[in-house]
Amino acid sequence: MTLPAPTSQPSHDQLASKAQAWSALFSEPMSDLVKRYTSSVFFDKRLWQADIAGSLAHAEMLAAQGIISAGDHAAIERGMATITREIEAGQFDWQLDLEDVHLNIEARLTQLVGDAGKRLHTGRSRNDQVATDVRLWLRGEIDLIAGLLADVQRALVEVAAQNVDVILPGFTHLQVAQPVSFAHHLLAYVEMFARDAERMADVRRRVNVLPLGSAALAGTTYPLDRERVARTLGMDGVCQNSLDAVSDRDFAIEFAAAASLVMVHVSRLSEELIVWMSQNFAFIRIADRFTTGSSIMPQKKNPDVPELARGKTGRVVGHLMGLITLMKGQPLAYNKDNQEDKEPLFDTVDTLKDTLRIFAEMIGGQPGPQTGAKSGGISVNRQAMRAAALKGYATATDLADYLVKKGLPFRDAHETVAHAVKAASDQGVDLTELSLQQLQGFHPAIEADIFDALTLEGSLNARNTLGGTAPAQVRAQLARHQARLGA
Amino acid sequence: MTLPAPTSQPSHDQLASKAQAWSALFSEPMSDLVKRYTSSVFFDKRLWQADIAGSLAHAEMLAAQGIISAGDHAAIERGMATITREIEAGQFDWQLDLEDVHLNIEARLTQLVGDAGKRLHTGRSRNDQVATDVRLWLRGEIDLIAGLLADVQRALVEVAAQNVDVILPGFTHLQVAQPVSFAHHLLAYVEMFARDAERMADVRRRVNVLPLGSAALAGTTYPLDRERVARTLGMDGVCQNSLDAVSDRDFAIEFAAAASLVMVHVSRLSEELIVWMSQNFAFIRIADRFTTGSSIMPQKKNPDVPELARGKTGRVVGHLMGLITLMKGQPLAYNKDNQEDKEPLFDTVDTLKDTLRIFAEMIGGQPGPQTGAKSGGISVNRQAMRAAALKGYATATDLADYLVKKGLPFRDAHETVAHAVKAASDQGVDLTELSLQQLQGFHPAIEADIFDALTLEGSLNARNTLGGTAPAQVRAQLARHQARLGA
Amino acid sequence: MTLPAPTSQPSHDQLASKAQAWSALFSEPMSDLVKRYTSSVFFDKRLWQADIAGSLAHAEMLAAQGIISAGDHAAIERGMATITREIEAGQFDWQLDLEDVHLNIEARLTQLVGDAGKRLHTGRSRNDQVATDVRLWLRGEIDLIAGLLADVQRALVEVAAQNVDVILPGFTHLQVAQPVSFAHHLLAYVEMFARDAERMADVRRRVNVLPLGSAALAGTTYPLDRERVARTLGMDGVCQNSLDAVSDRDFAIEFAAAASLVMVHVSRLSEELIVWMSQNFAFIRIADRFTTGSSIMPQKKNPDVPELARGKTGRVVGHLMGLITLMKGQPLAYNKDNQEDKEPLFDTVDTLKDTLRIFAEMIGGQPGPQTGAKSGGISVNRQAMRAAALKGYATATDLADYLVKKGLPFRDAHETVAHAVKAASDQGVDLTELSLQQLQGFHPAIEADIFDALTLEGSLNARNTLGGTAPAQVRAQLARHQARLGA
Amino acid sequence: MTLPAPTSQPSHDQLASKAQAWSALFSEPMSDLVKRYTSSVFFDKRLWQADIAGSLAHAEMLAAQGIISAGDHAAIERGMATITREIEAGQFDWQLDLEDVHLNIEARLTQLVGDAGKRLHTGRSRNDQVATDVRLWLRGEIDLIAGLLADVQRALVEVAAQNVDVILPGFTHLQVAQPVSFAHHLLAYVEMFARDAERMADVRRRVNVLPLGSAALAGTTYPLDRERVARTLGMDGVCQNSLDAVSDRDFAIEFAAAASLVMVHVSRLSEELIVWMSQNFAFIRIADRFTTGSSIMPQKKNPDVPELARGKTGRVVGHLMGLITLMKGQPLAYNKDNQEDKEPLFDTVDTLKDTLRIFAEMIGGQPGPQTGAKSGGISVNRQAMRAAALKGYATATDLADYLVKKGLPFRDAHETVAHAVKAASDQGVDLTELSLQQLQGFHPAIEADIFDALTLEGSLNARNTLGGTAPAQVRAQLARHQARLGA
Repeated sequence: MTLPAPTSQPSHDQLASKAQAWSALFSEPMSDLVKRYTSSVFFDKRLWQADIAGSLAHAEMLAAQGIISAGDHAAIERGMATITREIEAGQFDWQLDLEDVHLNIEARLTQLVGDAGKRLHTGRSRNDQVATDVRLWLRGEIDLIAGLLADVQRALVEVAAQNVDVILPGFTHLQVAQPVSFAHHLLAYVEMFARDAERMADVRRRVNVLPLGSAALAGTTYPLDRERVARTLGMDGVCQNSLDAVSDRDFAIEFAAAASLVMVHVSRLSEELIVWMSQNFAFIRIADRFTTGSSIMPQKKNPDVPELARGKTGRVVGHLMGLITLMKGQPLAYNKDNQEDKEPLFDTVDTLKDTLRIFAEMIGGQPGPQTGAKSGGISVNRQAMRAAALKGYATATDLADYLVKKGLPFRDAHETVAHAVKAASDQGVDLTELSLQQLQGFHPAIEADIFDALTLEGSLNARNTLGGTAPAQVRAQLARHQARLGA
Repeated sequence: MTLPAPTSQPSHDQLASKAQAWSALFSEPMSDLVKRYTSSVFFDKRLWQADIAGSLAHAEMLAAQGIISAGDHAAIERGMATITREIEAGQFDWQLDLEDVHLNIEARLTQLVGDAGKRLHTGRSRNDQVATDVRLWLRGEIDLIAGLLADVQRALVEVAAQNVDVILPGFTHLQVAQPVSFAHHLLAYVEMFARDAERMADVRRRVNVLPLGSAALAGTTYPLDRERVARTLGMDGVCQNSLDAVSDRDFAIEFAAAASLVMVHVSRLSEELIVWMSQNFAFIRIADRFTTGSSIMPQKKNPDVPELARGKTGRVVGHLMGLITLMKGQPLAYNKDNQEDKEPLFDTVDTLKDTLRIFAEMIGGQPGPQTGAKSGGISVNRQAMRAAALKGYATATDLADYLVKKGLPFRDAHETVAHAVKAASDQGVDLTELSLQQLQGFHPAIEADIFDALTLEGSLNARNTLGGTAPAQVRAQLARHQARLGA
Repeated sequence: MTLPAPTSQPSHDQLASKAQAWSALFSEPMSDLVKRYTSSVFFDKRLWQADIAGSLAHAEMLAAQGIISAGDHAAIERGMATITREIEAGQFDWQLDLEDVHLNIEARLTQLVGDAGKRLHTGRSRNDQVATDVRLWLRGEIDLIAGLLADVQRALVEVAAQNVDVILPGFTHLQVAQPVSFAHHLLAYVEMFARDAERMADVRRRVNVLPLGSAALAGTTYPLDRERVARTLGMDGVCQNSLDAVSDRDFAIEFAAAASLVMVHVSRLSEELIVWMSQNFAFIRIADRFTTGSSIMPQKKNPDVPELARGKTGRVVGHLMGLITLMKGQPLAYNKDNQEDKEPLFDTVDTLKDTLRIFAEMIGGQPGPQTGAKSGGISVNRQAMRAAALKGYATATDLADYLVKKGLPFRDAHETVAHAVKAASDQGVDLTELSLQQLQGFHPAIEADIFDALTLEGSLNARNTLGGTAPAQVRAQLARHQARLGA
Repeated sequence: MTLPAPTSQPSHDQLASKAQAWSALFSEPMSDLVKRYTSSVFFDKRLWQADIAGSLAHAEMLAAQGIISAGDHAAIERGMATITREIEAGQFDWQLDLEDVHLNIEARLTQLVGDAGKRLHTGRSRNDQVATDVRLWLRGEIDLIAGLLADVQRALVEVAAQNVDVILPGFTHLQVAQPVSFAHHLLAYVEMFARDAERMADVRRRVNVLPLGSAALAGTTYPLDRERVARTLGMDGVCQNSLDAVSDRDFAIEFAAAASLVMVHVSRLSEELIVWMSQNFAFIRIADRFTTGSSIMPQKKNPDVPELARGKTGRVVGHLMGLITLMKGQPLAYNKDNQEDKEPLFDTVDTLKDTLRIFAEMIGGQPGPQTGAKSGGISVNRQAMRAAALKGYATATDLADYLVKKGLPFRDAHETVAHAVKAASDQGVDLTELSLQQLQGFHPAIEADIFDALTLEGSLNARNTLGGTAPAQVRAQLARHQARLGA
């Protein structure tokens, strides 16, 4: 289908008169307060690249389907190239009166290329356009976040690789439980961030689907080829129901939920870094540039970055809550409420990217400009860790396991060791400081080899099953992660 | 106590070197990313007036207590006057390197007045300073919000005053329940916003307490007169525990909770406005400037403002959730996490103020420049309301009450009427369209006066107890609100 | 490795004395309040099947690895069979003193089979045991939920299949936008629930991984074969890091997030059902048994089920928020906080299952006991829908599209139609009620065929692109869903 | 107005037939699933006392107003007395079929006293009845919670009174900041719980207002005296708008918000208790009965109670979020969604009461049965606290303040001390271990009296302004709290 030549009658520039009234239907202009309240251009202009990409793919398809002429298509491409240059140069005149990124760009396009610009909106609506823009933009951000999640994992793996034989007390309930390898501890976080990356990949699949061509809510009367547009934009598929396409914000909520989990992990790691840096632990130090001082206490070096990151968890979780509240109870199809999806989404993305970038560097250090060797990551105080592991009867379980191997049922061995710990504790000594004779008083099966089992290294090496903290297991896990991450 | 003359030794300008390192303790400068991540100046500069007011009250007290000299005090006042002018004129050079509003202002003060500026921080810390600033600022915003809550109530009362005799169906479960006065319906929202104002007043009492003088966390070694500062700043009292003073953010959470309730009310009213504007109800219209059109459907006038307001409920609730998450599990005293209190608080205040302002105008209209008469508020379609009230057997309860007055126990009357409604419904007629004989078939006590009870007006007038919808009651409530609001 | 014969020394039954004290280490018994506060047995006993399945798989592996004897293994299997019978018969004596499901079952096992029971806990801890139980249980529930999501989709598809040609107004902003097929509208929800099912499948992959063998936090000293246990239990893999394994609750949060989205969809559908049932819409009816009456208004039939379901969205979202708050800032590894994961998870599952089951039946009806034919689903009032679609200039976009096909740029066509709508609206007529001459007054290109384009059917049929509302498209989607769902 | 004698016609017992159908209007019975989904009796029966109290006050007023006869009133009182006995004895037959607590009690009343029972519901509806019940119940619970908040404060004050001179490091950012009195630290929590009590009192004012007499939504046709009912029930006032009265759940949200703040405080205190109990701090111990052991590690004593309390913060916050989500966007007046207010409210109250009760005892101990002397509260390790306070240059600020008193501007003093700390830190010594000569190298004004300022006691005593940590200040605060709490 090719359209007849455009009629020559002078077209009133409707978009330019938005300041006066929305269309001929409206009897009065918007007040400034209303304009500011309802406009989105000052935050949604960050979608401009997605908006232009989507428009170009749409125009290309319109031309291929004969809905607009090749000339119009060329004019649109030319205009968009100009607009791209203007925006990149900071010379584009974003106007509040034009409400959002879409109308700003379309109005400028029409200024630049005339009627061809007015034809661009054929077969689409802002409802499907904005849904497309947000999805395209978010897809790109997810890819960046995936890279940053890999960076954080690599940083953790690098520090872990240097600390396989460093022993700290593993805690449960923040009480000394059993000795663990510091590398093993760090790799627990690698598992978490690896799950985050998996979840982000799952979200991406549901983000990368094309709403465009659903028009306002019901589809369109033009013979669009929506799958062509999806291919052009590198999308995995096409939304199959127009009402759903324009009103669905599941992907935003799902992304915010995945982001919240990332931040929960960041908050847990931050909590540990903060505790480990306290003078009573002194397990690690982070580089000065991730700390700040005090305006009053001259001696302070505060772990500001982990604390702030822990705090920012609230921000991201708040956005998730906000997005869910937003969608609860909304009837079909598009409602203006949905405009409120953008700021929480943008801020979630920004928070996530900044936090992951800074954590990768804070943990693993930065490559030096000359040598490329990294420096400035966390410093490990292995003596303090070891000293802490020697408190709290961390190897008591090993005594119980020893007794089980001598034939005691586990429950009886557990109770026997509780007596031994109580006795040692009453004397203020460690289990290893009890004499063999004293130990045999708790159970006659105990022999001299018990003292090997009760050392930190003995305990560590003994936990040599898949997922355990024995150095052999930790090294195997390191190798797996290094292969996976190309680290 | 008067301090000796300052030593003449050249003072190294520590604040100006923040870009290099925090203090002599720090071996490396902050990276740009870290600076951006940890700095707050680009959002907390909005606290500048509170910061200066707090500093001036602190300096006045320091001088009164002889901790700084009168000359230093005068210099500080002079410097702060200059800074105020600079900021108001948009000429103040806010620097990211100086991290926050406090250091920006203090550094500029020291530039302007030298050592006197460096003495301002005596006996305080940024921890108590920021807590004071936020409380001062929030107190002012609560006062503005209280005014806006009164404006919205006044607008509702004005529209109600014109619509006492307009009858619409009261709904429960969105099903026609009983006829109510439209004024009565609007006054339900006046009750809600009145409660909000009460809650805000309660929050204000707990906001308006002075942390200053708690210093970093433990109080200070200078002989401060904290109650003098509180009086100067118009605060109701002084925080009684320094650790609590610097770490408490209850007031922010409590404010966000009160704000969330305001938005819940706004969302309920918005939901109703949206339903009432739908073509199938057509109960009201709002002025064009609170609606927008569609980029594709030329006939559309969409209630964007109520929808957006409904959506913004999520935003505010999200901030509440974020703030609670922020504080959960934080040990004493100040932690950097707390810096994250500001943006949600600021955005909550902005959202609340904008929304209330726009609702006051959308409901009640705007005064015309010449006459001062208001126009542009909601338009009421009393015919559509009446037609809707005549559907759904809205006066069935009145028939039951009629039978009770004839001696039936309520439960039996209820059941009798259910039979009558079923019969009328099967015939597709209203209860009033049944003949007296038919009605008497359900119960012999029914007489001709039943038809008065079954009219909308009869039903309305009969609900003449305190809080009921009878016009007499509604007028009494209107008078009470008008007196209370000076409306 | 085979263990020596158990020592004969009388084993003190430690578990049975929990009421007195935890172990020899503890100097005093728990108070009743503490016991009630910290115990979980009265809610976690619902995990009993998972707990026994996990124990049996663990025991089987212990025997295969020679860690316990074949005799012990047989005794454990025998004991567990007895316990299973006891629980199923309601004869199991759950004891608060035994704190949780794990200790209750283990204590009973030891009562039944003696030392073999005490050996069961070899190489595991409650930390990895409970994580395993919850995952096994949740996997089963996810499978049930997947089935219920399919049921709801099938119900929607069945009603859609009967209503392809029924036209209702599609709304944006709850304002009449364009005519849509009722089937198309229902299929929008099918898309949502299909995404939910996809998400649940993603969650399942991350749930179905085995923590067992991680012991308390560091792995174990026994030569376990964890992958064998995973295979026995039908799990997809093994947790690779013991610290992560015992402390990870990501899967619970992720499930709650997916469940929240299901409920958001339910709340949207509920909102529509409620609006559609209001007397001013009267688009549908739901069967009496999903409604309730009023204790005072005899005429009422209230859509209680959709309302309650809409309300229950809050409940599930609350659980999501609770779970995130729970995990925020927790250091590794297991902390008692984690016990709080269960009740929100259980209630989320229950709410989801009940809601989906009831929605499937409320929408699609129930098969009759004799004929198997379904009855009792929603009743559609096609006249009311049609009447509503004829309000509000639903086909105005079609006039604009008509003009575009005549050569007008879309933006100019949009503006032209706005004038026509304004004129028709001023006259109180529909666009189709304007004369050809009047229409030509807005644009000379309009011809007599315009009246076809402006009918509801014309408009509907014209939206014949992928995802659009044209009956041809809707039928294609129906076929796709029927094939996918086996409906 | 006196009613005529009741007609003698046999009244069909409508309530008893709920299992069959709601009223004559309904064509089919509810399915069991629907019944279970929509019924509330199994959780709302806990409101029975409030329900009966409300009914009695209502009946008393009906009689006083001549709406029911004195005989009916007496019959209702007699019936309710019987029902009270039945419920208290556990003999009341709660029936799912009767949906909720209200209908269960009313149906039983009618069984017991006949028509008088059927007259009780005159002039009210379940909508205003349930709102009244929940408010009455919550008022009582708030009073209990206020008592428990006082108990926790008293426990903190008692422990504080014994530890005024015990010095621990005050932390900011979990880094050693300045020495503080342990009593001062505990009193920070007293401030928090005192604010909580204030907030609860504010909530109580808004809870204690009477909805009854608003009937379904519009008021009633009977000449009720609502203020009489309010007086009978001890309520502060009467809801002024019937639509608002039946739909308002602000009080539930506001209570949940206040409860969330209580739990935030509990979570902060718990976090500190957990950190303080870790072996690397070892500042305190809590009694064995608030800890539990490990099923695998025989040496463990875990602070389960504080951890669980920290976790339960999530639960309460989740309920707050659930309640807000519930109310968002609900149109007036009553909707069934509101039934979902109860379970979160009930669980919030239970969690709060249990947690506060257990914290009062865990901190302050329990009175012995014989002597009444308390034992079993937290044990303080003053040596460990002191040792920790000596780390981290806790008195560096005191050196800066010393220099300020010698005339240095604060900022210069701060920088000078930073150099001194760096030097001491490089040598691995405390500031007090530097020689006077070395200190003078940083500033010539330093004299021998500096060593007094740098002791922990010197530092503590110097912070002697209102709210500071000096023992004199702390004792003054203790006296204030003791007077306030009657402790």
